[in-house]
Amino acid sequence: MSTVHSGAARPAIHAIGGQFSSLTPLLAPRSIAVIGASSDPTRIGGRPIAYMKNQGFKGALYPVNPTRPEIQGLKAYASIADLPEPPDVAIVAVPANIAVQAVSDLAKLGVKGVVMFTAGFAEVDEAGERAQSAMIAEARQSGMRILGPNCLGVFDSRLGYYATFSSSFDSGWPVPGRIGIASQSGAYGTHLYTLARNRGIGASLCVMTGNEADVTVGECIGWLAENPEVDVIAVYAEGIREAPGLIAALTAAKASKKPIVMQKVGRSELGGKAAKSHTASIAGDDAVTEAVMAEFGVFRARNSEEMLDIAHTATRKIYPVRNTLGVITVSGGAGVLISDVAEGLGLDMPEMPQDAQDKLRALIPFCAPRNPVDATAQVTNDITLVNTFTESMVRDGGYASVLGFFSMTASSKRWPAIREQLNPVMKAHPDRLYVLSVITPQAGRDELEADGWVVHEDPTRAVVAIDAMGRYGAAFAAPPPAAPPSVPQIALPAATPTEAEAKRLLAEAGIASAPEAACDSAETAVAAAEGFGFPVVMKILSPDILHKSEIGGVLLDIADAASVREGFALLLERAKTAAPHARIEGVLVAKQLKGGVECILGIHRDPVFGPMAMFGLGGIFVEILKDVVFRRCPFGVDVAEQMIRSIKGAPLLLGARGRQPADVKALAAMLARLSVFAHQAGPALQSIDLNPVFAMPEGQGAFAADAVIEIGG
Amino acid sequence: MSTVHSGAARPAIHAIGGQFSSLTPLLAPRSIAVIGASSDPTRIGGRPIAYMKNQGFKGALYPVNPTRPEIQGLKAYASIADLPEPPDVAIVAVPANIAVQAVSDLAKLGVKGVVMFTAGFAEVDEAGERAQSAMIAEARQSGMRILGPNCLGVFDSRLGYYATFSSSFDSGWPVPGRIGIASQSGAYGTHLYTLARNRGIGASLCVMTGNEADVTVGECIGWLAENPEVDVIAVYAEGIREAPGLIAALTAAKASKKPIVMQKVGRSELGGKAAKSHTASIAGDDAVTEAVMAEFGVFRARNSEEMLDIAHTATRKIYPVRNTLGVITVSGGAGVLISDVAEGLGLDMPEMPQDAQDKLRALIPFCAPRNPVDATAQVTNDITLVNTFTESMVRDGGYASVLGFFSMTASSKRWPAIREQLNPVMKAHPDRLYVLSVITPQAGRDELEADGWVVHEDPTRAVVAIDAMGRYGAAFAAPPPAAPPSVPQIALPAATPTEAEAKRLLAEAGIASAPEAACDSAETAVAAAEGFGFPVVMKILSPDILHKSEIGGVLLDIADAASVREGFALLLERAKTAAPHARIEGVLVAKQLKGGVECILGIHRDPVFGPMAMFGLGGIFVEILKDVVFRRCPFGVDVAEQMIRSIKGAPLLLGARGRQPADVKALAAMLARLSVFAHQAGPALQSIDLNPVFAMPEGQGAFAADAVIEIGG
Repeated sequence: MSTVHSGAARPAIHAIGGQFSSLTPLLAPRSIAVIGASSDPTRIGGRPIAYMKNQGFKGALYPVNPTRPEIQGLKAYASIADLPEPPDVAIVAVPANIAVQAVSDLAKLGVKGVVMFTAGFAEVDEAGERAQSAMIAEARQSGMRILGPNCLGVFDSRLGYYATFSSSFDSGWPVPGRIGIASQSGAYGTHLYTLARNRGIGASLCVMTGNEADVTVGECIGWLAENPEVDVIAVYAEGIREAPGLIAALTAAKASKKPIVMQKVGRSELGGKAAKSHTASIAGDDAVTEAVMAEFGVFRARNSEEMLDIAHTATRKIYPVRNTLGVITVSGGAGVLISDVAEGLGLDMPEMPQDAQDKLRALIPFCAPRNPVDATAQVTNDITLVNTFTESMVRDGGYASVLGFFSMTASSKRWPAIREQLNPVMKAHPDRLYVLSVITPQAGRDELEADGWVVHEDPTRAVVAIDAMGRYGAAFAAPPPAAPPSVPQIALPAATPTEAEAKRLLAEAGIASAPEAACDSAETAVAAAEGFGFPVVMKILSPDILHKSEIGGVLLDIADAASVREGFALLLERAKTAAPHARIEGVLVAKQLKGGVECILGIHRDPVFGPMAMFGLGGIFVEILKDVVFRRCPFGVDVAEQMIRSIKGAPLLLGARGRQPADVKALAAMLARLSVFAHQAGPALQSIDLNPVFAMPEGQGAFAADAVIEIGG
Repeated sequence: MSTVHSGAARPAIHAIGGQFSSLTPLLAPRSIAVIGASSDPTRIGGRPIAYMKNQGFKGALYPVNPTRPEIQGLKAYASIADLPEPPDVAIVAVPANIAVQAVSDLAKLGVKGVVMFTAGFAEVDEAGERAQSAMIAEARQSGMRILGPNCLGVFDSRLGYYATFSSSFDSGWPVPGRIGIASQSGAYGTHLYTLARNRGIGASLCVMTGNEADVTVGECIGWLAENPEVDVIAVYAEGIREAPGLIAALTAAKASKKPIVMQKVGRSELGGKAAKSHTASIAGDDAVTEAVMAEFGVFRARNSEEMLDIAHTATRKIYPVRNTLGVITVSGGAGVLISDVAEGLGLDMPEMPQDAQDKLRALIPFCAPRNPVDATAQVTNDITLVNTFTESMVRDGGYASVLGFFSMTASSKRWPAIREQLNPVMKAHPDRLYVLSVITPQAGRDELEADGWVVHEDPTRAVVAIDAMGRYGAAFAAPPPAAPPSVPQIALPAATPTEAEAKRLLAEAGIASAPEAACDSAETAVAAAEGFGFPVVMKILSPDILHKSEIGGVLLDIADAASVREGFALLLERAKTAAPHARIEGVLVAKQLKGGVECILGIHRDPVFGPMAMFGLGGIFVEILKDVVFRRCPFGVDVAEQMIRSIKGAPLLLGARGRQPADVKALAAMLARLSVFAHQAGPALQSIDLNPVFAMPEGQGAFAADAVIEIGG
């Protein structure tokens, strides 16, 4: 019987007392109990023990099994009560009917973490959900954290810690490295690290959160952000269930300049359905998650390959604040392709300085020295020109990122000589990002990676990864956002207010509407209209009719007094027909604004992230093109203006093609104030629609022409 | 000295007398001369000989070298005149100053094809361009075809034919297979087939066209379409220089149901610049090439990996006319991801029939049988369930394409048993497309490919490739387009006509404008306006002022007679100020159309493809969102309607969200007539802008409100 390694040195992570340190016993334990330990190394309760023995976990390992004194050569304990000490973590690998009691026993013993493989809880039915809730409630009382249930667990190859029953180690062990993976899906988490391993990409640590009854993927991100052994965080998410942990995690990662790359699925309606049946939880709205990612500079990867490309590139820790790309190639065709991709991403490829171009052309008359720099096959005649050209690009061109396209040359006999010419450039200028697009077997790739190159076989993928580094750089360097404007605290009514009342509330918050008057007779309406000047808009005024245009309750382009009288009668008639029991308070007469750009400003309360502000251009832009942007409330005018400028239709507001620019400042102020209003309003506020808002020409303000505030329960 | 293999059996391709058969001696020769043959197998004139000896070219090989009687063990000839017979093809590997004479001598000898490695022609300077033109002119007289100059040549591994000096064979020989590659770039062409080879994808044939002085990439596509040894065509293009060959090629490929996948670069402005300095030719407009590809069902790949994914998948020759995807997975997470990708592409994933779902749920209570079908890890307990589930999907679900996500399970010990359960389904239903997303070394992948699976490691890439097969299927099955409408032949004026004259010409072609009158006095203008009814539009009328709105020459919303008089004076005043020497013919008064949707219809003469029609929505849609579609002229109303429905803003015309549908039939008829008008007009027609065109509500027609016809030289 072998000895367990007790009292080994604590990993560095144990010294960290960060805000996510409650996860440390769970994710980096010094001692481990396995409840339901099996002698069979292929069974769920046997695998973790077999893996940790094989990989040399340096800590105590306590199998718990009521019938066997020894498990896989280790002394076993008959029950939790028999354990010689409370372990940092307990792996629970017994069926659900026993597992609940085990968790209770572990909590009483003072165990700080449980990795719970056991399935049969919230993912199955309501009874399972109730059992899960009760179990978590008890665990929380004792301060114990639970990963899962129904999870594939966690491993950290550098600790030899394998609290997982994944069979993926059949085909090999993880490559040690500074990428940490957090995944809501067990199968996809192991898929990812297997891909990484097969590419020789170092990802030591992978945590898979399963049902997330307690520990969420957000908290795991936060713990990785605080872990000094992790530089880059890769995340696979299906739906965010809890906001504070995630927000704190993203804040911590950004503060410590650790890039996060995230694959978020459940984007589609179809995906949303599948997510629901899979995760036993409602996936957060995709647009909302996207907005939160954008807020913190998280890169959203389109697929697993892109995620690993970016995570791997990021381990070089070069994040240019202003990224520029210089390309050295021996193929004009690849240069064109690379330029296309860079242009599509908005990655700048400035030309080489003219004098540097002239010098290069003096060396190879038919070269293309602009950028991409095509040195042509001529360099094979004088191999030192590879150095001359590349050095000139870095020194004279000053590019933050350099991409060399050498394709299958890297498999040729000339390659060692070329490599010798390239490497000194990298050593002379270590502050740049160096990427090679080459075709070479894994061994050749490993050599180049050891030199300091990032190797991507495909040039398109190389450019995407390079561009991502600049996006991280810009996000890390961004000044802290301005404070949200101060807006008076406004008491919301108990029920959804009328349009006039809604506008009055918004006016208190400094959000202007078009001049208007609530009129209870045709004659007061005429007087109001004449006061504003024609044309005017007329709308039915009723607390019971929320969507006025659906019942024909809005009249536009009313041009004279006679039409106001006609309109007044018509609106009352339509309201009576469409909603016979609605309380009718009269008609709202408003000045019809001309010459502005129609926008929509809105608030939507997300069940996870709370009030989210939306901005878009009005009409077809929102309805058909979905050209909108979201942001968590509250925020300041700087963020509001970034939002406005980020939509595709922004040129309409900014004065494209001879148009008069709209009052973007006023619009941004309105949006920021709306975000504060929504934030202060509390959970009773369900939604706000300001649609349309007219952004008038520069200096003339922005005015809501309609307002709906929905109070809910 | 070894014997040359003379008089070997002709490859099958020689029996084909297709429209591209003039390329057969060049691309599939029986006998080859090498002009500038070298004894050094690493030199440009030595490599083809070394390669063909190594790979067993079954035909005559004649080295030509003035100083050596023997080259690499073959009898050499001192000059072209000394050759024992005119070879099918001659490889020219001598410097430019000698090469021109050699080509001339070869033409006189009656050689039918030349592969010209020699650089120093149009890609260098104008003198080079002149020399190239003269050389081609002489070759054409004798019916000789030239590949290049400045090209990397061609190879067909199944013939052992290597008319190329690419060094890429240092790292291995091509994998034989039924993909043919045509590339304008030599370096990128070899990059592509090297990628294919490394993935075990069979691409026997690769032709690289270099300067395209004679043979174009279009013709090469055509020859591949007629080659019975090729099923799938992969193309890398930088700019199409010649239309008839390409159009004939795409027509031939579509008729023989050979899918084409194309990577077209030079998309960006930046890329365009690089393409110019690289290829010594002006790249065709990217939007135009895109339109031609769409017309023929060519799939445009975003990168090389996607190109190979799709080409490889296409070699299974399953092109569903109505594609549907069924997914079997052991990971819910992957199911969500796959659903997202399918939804994004518009690939349908119908649910399994309810009774089939019930049956599967009876077998594994916690499975998700809808689609994706998540059989869960439960199947590892009863492995035959893998067969039951998959068989039910194919039989009961009836999916055209089946994707299995098994990730690293394919590297596990259980995999052989799972594979045995999967394969019978494929054998029982051979008409479906079967794809696996698995992580397995090349050997395991090769086994699965041999079984009949297409293997893509990444599930996202798998879905993209599956979707592409349905796009091919739909394109192949599409009914032939309707005949273009009959439009009278209309004589164009010698110079750019006025707006009124342009509208008269268009009216002859059956293209209606808003009612209007040319007026030479304020009083005739008032009379015209009163005749049409207010409001009216007024525009300056001058053959010398093309873009009226730029000088303030258009007045909208003229509501009464007094305003017409004012407007008349104002327009004349503005014209005089802005263009003092313009001939002013008066003012055009037109009925202002209300309630229609603003569109733009245009014609642009592309230097390669001739007149191209454009359709888009007016205003910001064209200016800011570039939401337009192009198509070669002429075409019928069916194509016109497809164009209209294909733009993002189409819902605006089709009556989305309670809008009245526009008269799409009238709009399509106008667009088709415009395409015929432009086609019949001949090369003097430079462009037409109908902007705006008002598509009125259904049944009320479509009318051009402005028309500019540009006649050019």
